[in-house]
Amino acid sequence: MRGEDDMDLPVWADVEAAHERIRPYIHRTPILTSETFNRMVGAELFFKCENFQKAGAFKARGASNAVFGLSDEEAKRGVATHSSGNHGLSLSYAAGRRGVPCTVVMPRTAPEPKKAAVRGYGGRVVECEPSTSSREAVFAGVLEETGAEFVHPYNDPRVIAGQGTCAKEMFEDLGAMDALVAPIGGGGMISGSCLSLSHLSPKTKIYAAEPTAADDAYQSFKTGEIVAYDAPVTIADGLKVPLKERTWHFVKTYVEDVLLADEEEIVAAMRLTWERMKIVMEPSCAVPLAAILRNKHLFAGKRVGVVITGGNVDLDKLPWLKS
Amino acid sequence: MRGEDDMDLPVWADVEAAHERIRPYIHRTPILTSETFNRMVGAELFFKCENFQKAGAFKARGASNAVFGLSDEEAKRGVATHSSGNHGLSLSYAAGRRGVPCTVVMPRTAPEPKKAAVRGYGGRVVECEPSTSSREAVFAGVLEETGAEFVHPYNDPRVIAGQGTCAKEMFEDLGAMDALVAPIGGGGMISGSCLSLSHLSPKTKIYAAEPTAADDAYQSFKTGEIVAYDAPVTIADGLKVPLKERTWHFVKTYVEDVLLADEEEIVAAMRLTWERMKIVMEPSCAVPLAAILRNKHLFAGKRVGVVITGGNVDLDKLPWLKS
Repeated sequence: MRGEDDMDLPVWADVEAAHERIRPYIHRTPILTSETFNRMVGAELFFKCENFQKAGAFKARGASNAVFGLSDEEAKRGVATHSSGNHGLSLSYAAGRRGVPCTVVMPRTAPEPKKAAVRGYGGRVVECEPSTSSREAVFAGVLEETGAEFVHPYNDPRVIAGQGTCAKEMFEDLGAMDALVAPIGGGGMISGSCLSLSHLSPKTKIYAAEPTAADDAYQSFKTGEIVAYDAPVTIADGLKVPLKERTWHFVKTYVEDVLLADEEEIVAAMRLTWERMKIVMEPSCAVPLAAILRNKHLFAGKRVGVVITGGNVDLDKLPWLKS
Repeated sequence: MRGEDDMDLPVWADVEAAHERIRPYIHRTPILTSETFNRMVGAELFFKCENFQKAGAFKARGASNAVFGLSDEEAKRGVATHSSGNHGLSLSYAAGRRGVPCTVVMPRTAPEPKKAAVRGYGGRVVECEPSTSSREAVFAGVLEETGAEFVHPYNDPRVIAGQGTCAKEMFEDLGAMDALVAPIGGGGMISGSCLSLSHLSPKTKIYAAEPTAADDAYQSFKTGEIVAYDAPVTIADGLKVPLKERTWHFVKTYVEDVLLADEEEIVAAMRLTWERMKIVMEPSCAVPLAAILRNKHLFAGKRVGVVITGGNVDLDKLPWLKS
């Protein structure tokens, strides 16, 4: 049985198949701990370091699953997507590994290193304005021109199943966690985590962490229907996009709560993680820690998994430095 | 039998004892790899991440070995040292774990986060001028005042044996490497590596990597006697200090060669490592990669261990940013 209603939703067997399929193309990333953070929160935190993932982000999982699941016939026409960054370069990475063409529509305001990385893996970048409406218009043109397979950054069952392999690895390495906290943008990581943990460890509470300045998932969760903004402004640039029907299904069905963090809390948590854990990560990845520090009562005495989603940062534009 | 001549030199059994003694107080740090760097060099590189070590640097190994090797009587009077940074905070960390006093003489120009970290672990900071001569004068006063046990940053058999546990772990995890490259300042890490690998894997070639701007170990190696500068200027601020008789013994006996890197090569290798490996590390740790990139012919087709020595960076003063 696949999903509910008429939606093509991924199921647990898809995560298992994805993990086998993508194993040669992804890292099994390490899980780091910090006594400093454990003391600060009064909990045991386990940081899954997807910033060390291929292409620098967890999105290599879903993109590889989509690309390597195509028939040879489909693959020949190539793949295409729109992406604020990491999904685009992950798709370019996966397409490069398979040796097929890849086109990525990116906001012209996206960090330069991300555009360079897409091209470095052999992908083609087509720029649009930094709004959902512009992106969709430009992308329609690309699909018409190329006939490529569209791999949506998150509203795609192949992508959600691929992202589910991250929580699967955490469960395999850590056993049942009391809670898992991951950032939420479009909801691909959260949906994959829900898919895997609802099967492996249904009592693990799943929290989505979101910037207050782009709180569309929070508003969706509280009002019971998808809320979307066209161009929110937040330092957590991976988290600006809205939920879509497949990710909304997982969020409304399995998520315990959506937790918010303000911009200055996100920057402080980001800097703290760089200083204490000695890892390079994006502002988006600091949202879970910022949200945990704001809601310590939810996590006190618990074993908590935290997903560090990516490490692709423009080192010339660190948010704690005046430019 | 201990060492040669009248010097109190550590032997292999001291490394084994150190590893048992310090195990509860240090991390067994992970070893990361990068396909990008492997392609760039044409070799297999294995990066031992001592930037993830307790107190943020490999120096926690030697300091813990010294502190926990003291009798209760000795420990009560506390420990003291002079240090450009990481040894000072590592000694403060180890003393804090044992609950004994610690005084650290530091150059007033040392990065603020390092001073704050010494104090954070419970140590006392006494400032001196940034030269070898000033440091030695101020430190003599501190010893007289406190009666504390002097733990030299590197010219101390307990410290060298402790640092040797790093190469021991690399051998245990990787087997025999063709080469190992580590930065050289005073020579503690290199000496410990020589001590361990001359026992475990005598055919592993050990290279010391040094900034051209502070090439005292290079000059010592080429001329056959210790060369020392009073206050060299380099971005690799952990590598300014000169060799002393114990570390010179290991360098002249076991090191294959001392490799140099210029300031701009060090900064480029540092930035490249942050971008590609997503780890926060000090400029000093970039010297090995910079030296390897300059001397690819030495490493082509080889399995090469590289020590990432520490991650304590002032995030407000990154060397690729104009201030």
